This record gives sequence, C-alpha cells and structure tokens, in this order.
Amino acid sequence: MENVMDNSGLDILIEGGTLLTMSESMNVIENPAIGIKDGRIAFVVQKKDVPGKDTYTAKTVLNASGSVIMPGLINTHTHLPMVCFRGLADDLPLMEWLNNHIFPAEARFVNRDMVYAGSMLAIAEMILSGTTMFCDAYFYESSVARAAVDSGMRAVVSQGFIDLPKQNDPVKIVDIAETFIKKWQEKAPLIIPSLACHSPYTCSPETLACIKDVARKNGVLYNIHVSETKEEVAIINERFGKRPVPYLRDINVLDDLTLAVHCIWLDDDEIEMLHECDVKVSHNPESNMKLAAGCAHVPIMIKKGITVGLGTDGCASNNDLDMFGEMATAARIHKVIRMDPTVMDAKTVLRMATISGAKALGIEDQTGSIEPGKYADIIIVDMDKPHLTPLYNCYSQLVYAASGSDVKTSIIGGNIVMHERKLLHIDVPSLMREVRTIAHAIAENSFSGG
Amino acid sequence: MENVMDNSGLDILIEGGTLLTMSESMNVIENPAIGIKDGRIAFVVQKKDVPGKDTYTAKTVLNASGSVIMPGLINTHTHLPMVCFRGLADDLPLMEWLNNHIFPAEARFVNRDMVYAGSMLAIAEMILSGTTMFCDAYFYESSVARAAVDSGMRAVVSQGFIDLPKQNDPVKIVDIAETFIKKWQEKAPLIIPSLACHSPYTCSPETLACIKDVARKNGVLYNIHVSETKEEVAIINERFGKRPVPYLRDINVLDDLTLAVHCIWLDDDEIEMLHECDVKVSHNPESNMKLAAGCAHVPIMIKKGITVGLGTDGCASNNDLDMFGEMATAARIHKVIRMDPTVMDAKTVLRMATISGAKALGIEDQTGSIEPGKYADIIIVDMDKPHLTPLYNCYSQLVYAASGSDVKTSIIGGNIVMHERKLLHIDVPSLMREVRTIAHAIAENSFSGG
Repeated sequence: MENVMDNSGLDILIEGGTLLTMSESMNVIENPAIGIKDGRIAFVVQKKDVPGKDTYTAKTVLNASGSVIMPGLINTHTHLPMVCFRGLADDLPLMEWLNNHIFPAEARFVNRDMVYAGSMLAIAEMILSGTTMFCDAYFYESSVARAAVDSGMRAVVSQGFIDLPKQNDPVKIVDIAETFIKKWQEKAPLIIPSLACHSPYTCSPETLACIKDVARKNGVLYNIHVSETKEEVAIINERFGKRPVPYLRDINVLDDLTLAVHCIWLDDDEIEMLHECDVKVSHNPESNMKLAAGCAHVPIMIKKGITVGLGTDGCASNNDLDMFGEMATAARIHKVIRMDPTVMDAKTVLRMATISGAKALGIEDQTGSIEPGKYADIIIVDMDKPHLTPLYNCYSQLVYAASGSDVKTSIIGGNIVMHERKLLHIDVPSLMREVRTIAHAIAENSFSGG
Repeated sequence: MENVMDNSGLDILIEGGTLLTMSESMNVIENPAIGIKDGRIAFVVQKKDVPGKDTYTAKTVLNASGSVIMPGLINTHTHLPMVCFRGLADDLPLMEWLNNHIFPAEARFVNRDMVYAGSMLAIAEMILSGTTMFCDAYFYESSVARAAVDSGMRAVVSQGFIDLPKQNDPVKIVDIAETFIKKWQEKAPLIIPSLACHSPYTCSPETLACIKDVARKNGVLYNIHVSETKEEVAIINERFGKRPVPYLRDINVLDDLTLAVHCIWLDDDEIEMLHECDVKVSHNPESNMKLAAGCAHVPIMIKKGITVGLGTDGCASNNDLDMFGEMATAARIHKVIRMDPTVMDAKTVLRMATISGAKALGIEDQTGSIEPGKYADIIIVDMDKPHLTPLYNCYSQLVYAASGSDVKTSIIGGNIVMHERKLLHIDVPSLMREVRTIAHAIAENSFSGG
C-alpha cells in the first residue's frame, strides 16, 4: 500500500520517537511521522519527509519522542466476562477449580448484565495495557459485542456452541449461528462475528461439522479449544480411535479460517496436519502454566510455518489480560522447556502478539502492522522510565522489560481511546463499582458453600 | 514484640485499607492503623483501637484506603550495575552471550562511576516496583553500597571473590574481606556487609574456605552461586569426584549463614544436605528461564523446610528488577514443570518474596513482616484499578495480577522513599541521562565488534 495525502487535512499526526512497523520487512523508522485519516493510516514516513507538510493540517498532533510507536497488541483468545471471577479460586486441582468454583459461579451469576459489565472492565484493562483487538467466546456473546462497540474496541466475537448438558438440535444452532453473524456484521469493521465450538470432547461431530459449514458459507473464523489437557486426547482416542487433530480433519473442520486454541498435547503428525490444513493456533502460555495444562510446542510450529497468535485466555486462569506480561512469559517459558536460550527471540514474540495475531484472526490485510491503508490500531509506549533504561534494542525492551502500564496512548481505528493513561470512553470508577457488586454476590455464594 | 506508644508522637501513621502482616500467623487486618517512630513499627492495630488516639500526633498520615499495606519486597540476588547491559544481548547461546557480549563489556566499561550510576538506576527501578531491600554482589561493591546509602535503600552488599584469571593470595583476600566488612558495618542498619564467592567452579577450595572463615568470624552472610547449569556439576564432579553440594559441605562452607543461589541441578541427597546444614536458597526463576539454565526444585525444598527467598538476578539476564513479575513467574513455572496446579500457591510465593527473603538474608528479626519493633519497611499497593478488580483474595491478586507499577508508596526504615509514584531522594531524569551516556559508549564498542 502507498502513502496517500490529500490537502483536506489529517485527523491525527503522530511524530517523533521510534516506529516499529511490524511489517513483513520489520521496517523500523527513527523520528517518523504517521498520518491518520478516516480511521486508517494515510502515510508512514520519516518526519522530514511528511508529504505536503507546509500545507496540511492535523486535528490532533501526538508527540511520541522518547516513545516507541507500534501496532496495538492482539489478544487472540479471551473469555472477557470471566474478569468477574479473577482470583475467586486459585492454586486448586483443575477439576476442583472447574466443578466446585467456576461452573457453579457461572451457572448462577452469568447473565447479560454481568457479561456486559465484565466485558467493559476487561476492555478497560486491555486498552490500558496496549491491546487494541481481542477474539472472544463466552455466554451471551452479544453483550460482549455491545461492550466492544460502546468502548470503541476492535473485536472478533464468537457465538459459542457446546453439547452439554445435551446434544444440540442442528437446525436450531445453524439458525442461531447465522442470526448472530448477520446481526454483528452490521457493526463492521469494529466488530467481526465468528463462531466457536467449545472442543472436540464437549461437542458432537455433527455440531462441530454443521457449525463449520455455517462459518465456511459466511467466510467467518471458527474457534475451537484443541488438546489443552492430556485427558482430552485420551477421551477422543477412546471415542473415535484417533487423536484430536486427525479426528477434526476427518470430519472436515480444519482449514485456513480455523483457530485452534492451546494445542498443547499434539504429536509431530498432528503439527504437520495443522500446517497442511493452514490452521491457525492461539498460544496462551500463562493460563497453560497456571492450570498445569502443559506447554505447547510453539517454536516447532513457528519453524514449520504455522501462524501462531498470542492470547491470555480468561481471567480466572491467568489472572490478568496484560499482553506485555504474556509476551515475557512466552519468550521465557520455551527457552527453559527446550533448554535453548535462542528460541522465541523477542522479535518473534512481538510478531506473535501483533501481525501474527492478525493473521490468526484472518485480518492481516487490515491490521497488525503500521502500514498505509491499514486501520490505525496503534499504541505509543513511553520508554522514558528507569526500568526501560538504557535502550539498546526496542524488541528486547518491550518483550522482557516493559509492562502494560508503560503504554501511554492507544488508538483504535483512528479513535484515541486512551491518552496519558486515561480512558476516554469508559467511566472506570462506576464500572469498578458495578463489578464489585457482582463479585460481592459471587463471594457470598461461594464462601457459604452454596 | 508488643505495640508501644508514648505521648511524644509518631513519625508516620498509616490508616485504612487491608494489611497483610506476613507474620508467622499470616495475620490480616482490615482497616488497620500502623504507627511508625524512629524508623521502626511502634504499633499495628485496628484503626478503632489506636492507642491513645485522642492525644498523639503524627507528622505524616498516609491514607491507605482501597490499598493493600504489606512488607516491602526483598530481592535476595542482584547484580545491580548490570542494568547498564539491559537488553544489550538477548536470545543468544549462553557462552556466546557471556564471552562475546557481557564479559567484554564488563572488562571495558565497569568502573566505580558506572557501578554507582547503574546501582542508582537499579535502586530507582526497585523502589518504584515495591522492593525495599536487596542482596547484591558485583565489582566495586562499595559503590553499590554508596548508592544504597544515598538513596535510602536497605541492602546486603557483598564483597565478591573469584579465582579468575588467577588464584588469589589468601592473605590478601582475607584482608580485603575484613576491611570491607568493617567499613560498611558503620552504615548499619541500612547497609549490611557480606561476602560472596562466585561459585565452586570459579573459586579454589582454599578461597571458598578462607572467605567462609572470615564470614563466620564476623557473623556475616556468605553468598555463592551453586549449580546454575548442568555443566558446572560435571566440572566439579570431574575435579573433585563429587557433586557441588557434598563438595561444599566437605570443605565446610555450608551453614545457616550461607545463601546458595540458583540451586537448579541438585539431586535428592543434595537437597537433603542443604536442609541438614540449614543453608538458605535464592530462587531466580526468570533469569533461569531466559538463560535456559533450568528450573530449581523449589516446591520440594520448601516442603522439606528449606528457606527459599526470591531474586531477580542481574538485569542482563531478566531483564527487569520487578519482584511482582518474578512472583507471578515463580507461581506459574513450577505448576507446569511439576504438572500440579496446587504447588507454589500465592501465599507461599508472597512469603518467599518477603519474610522468607528476610530469613534467607539472616535478618528476619528486623524486617520481612509488619510487626511492632521491626524496621518500617513497608509498601502500599493501590488496588483501585481495573486489572485488580474485583478483589476476592489479596494474595492471589498481588501474585497473579498486580505489577510493580501498582505500588504507590514505599517506606524504608521509616523513611518515605517513594510517594504517588514519585521518588523522593533520586533525581531520575539526570540519572537516566548518565546511564544513557554509559550505554552509548557500550553500544558503540559492542556493535563495532570491538
């Protein structure tokens, strides 16, 4: 795409600092100027080369000196409303955590209002820590979508399906899926509808296949948890006589618009199969560590050419949504697991959290890097701080030393949603009050053993 | 120790919020009042029970509502001046990193001024992220000690010894060790001198033993890196026909004032031996992961009753000094390594970063918990933030969701060193300028292949 400039002026001009474009060539520009108009990036040049600089006007000029300008981070796997369960039950065996804490709390407290409030709070946390886009699946997903619209956050929202407690009627779920897609396609480009089947072990082959059919017909993403635990692999093996990935391939749900989440317990053949089918992977290392699920073979996947995006998972198993922390963990965990300090270098990890995340969600032509024509999904990270000094290498510094609280400005589709650490479209104090009221009821219920 | 109150007034009174005392009983007080006088904690009570509250005065009153009050974090292993090498060389094989980047940079750029400036910057970062005490070893350690004195930071500073490039003269090093101890004992209680031998594989048995003798005679801590890599175990085995821990025991350097750092490649007998000798351990998970060194069997050590403190290691291998991040990593890494989500629960990890750290350094009677009579080494963490909402469990929230930037006030020995994120005794901008100048020279040298 080319730099474009007419004489009618810019919405935003960002000047100064260091620009990490995260483009294919990983172009880095010192002292850049980035023009933003109608939600998109109009030009990316060195400040001295701004096109027509003597004649144009910009409504807002942002000075980024002492800062890094980079694409907003993309969180490829979330269950936003679970912020309401943050810290409710930790350090427990997986089944006790799920059956005695999370499932009962969900059964009793999840409703439209809780989902909306939880999503808004999660979005506040995400914007404050540099995330400009997420991919979510939860109950009442339309309320997640509304929260994204109301806060100006870019989102892939997934209508989810699960055959628990009983098998779904295929006619009904196809209708639900199609209705959801139509409804939310109207809110493009901020909202991108998609579909999710919970997992191979909680959905029947009929549900998995018919929802994939709807996804294919509508050209939307299909999310599915795959092989998060050893146990599920055994379940699928027992039921179908094969491991999860060949099973999913054989029922024809694997293609380039399938996002397989976790992918921890894969053998070499399964990794090869994901690559052949061009399936995308969402890697959630902090959740996987905290739940003792395991550690996906991400360095091998990336080497093979599989697109891997980064995600936090829900807040009950993380317990935050800070993609900077997630990057640091992703960079460190694979080194010690593989006993090789050269794997998952900082550049690779930063790509995973930006352009590879966009690829994983099928929208790399629109976001994930700072290039003319793409949406202006941009963050400015303040590097003028003791813990970010000195600065030899921006990639290393962002991955190993920066944290979400170093982000000073966040722009989504040309809309400044956070500046100088203040959220511009969210009333944080009243939102925190609302979630605390919900949490109070959950805690009373939980601690009384009810 | 008992609550004490006379009528002459307090220096500081902290009121409101939630107090995690981190005492033996893990007492938690809602809406507490903590009185501070002459650098020490005078009383810890509920606000309604403040002794003589109608008559006393406090020079400074800190309102901690919406916050957690807790002991300052104790970083049990640092090489502070290495902040100057933060991000200089990452994602490299260990020997390439050391031999081609770190050692040449140290040989050429380490001097008194660099050590002082680097230490000041590291202390700024540490105070801003809730650390109130560290244990350090590096070249020109007196300059580290001076930085601690000048910034009001509590520190164990270690005169280090290494038999590289050649064997030291025992008479000389005993003299150096004794001179260092005498010099810095004068700056008690803020500064606590100690001694460090680099490792069993870089120090001769004579040096290891004669420095331990000086440490014993003077009642000071003896630091040593132990079994950070598999390779060192093989070296010791080859040289002495035994593994590192029995070797160190046999030359009589293991006792309750020995702090063994890393301790990754220990077998069961060695863990038992550390326990028998009451040796303390410093666990540095982020550095160990990033360098692909391995993961210490900390859950087993703690279960056995070994005191394990937490540390960040130097900034060239981490790359930050944020003990909150280190806690989150410590809590998560062992769960996935042991495939058990119940190990290293949040309380255990928070103890490791506070009272167990104090025990590891041999000063648990003076700091590490908030109890009357101890030094007022206290931090106030602002919990009124989206990523810390809702709040079911303070321990979980601090370990899994909080970050260093949530600390709003830091007090060391009754001296407020940081308030509302502003450092009160350090000129941060001029310090960052100075370190950038040093880094500029390092980068020029490094990148030109010199």
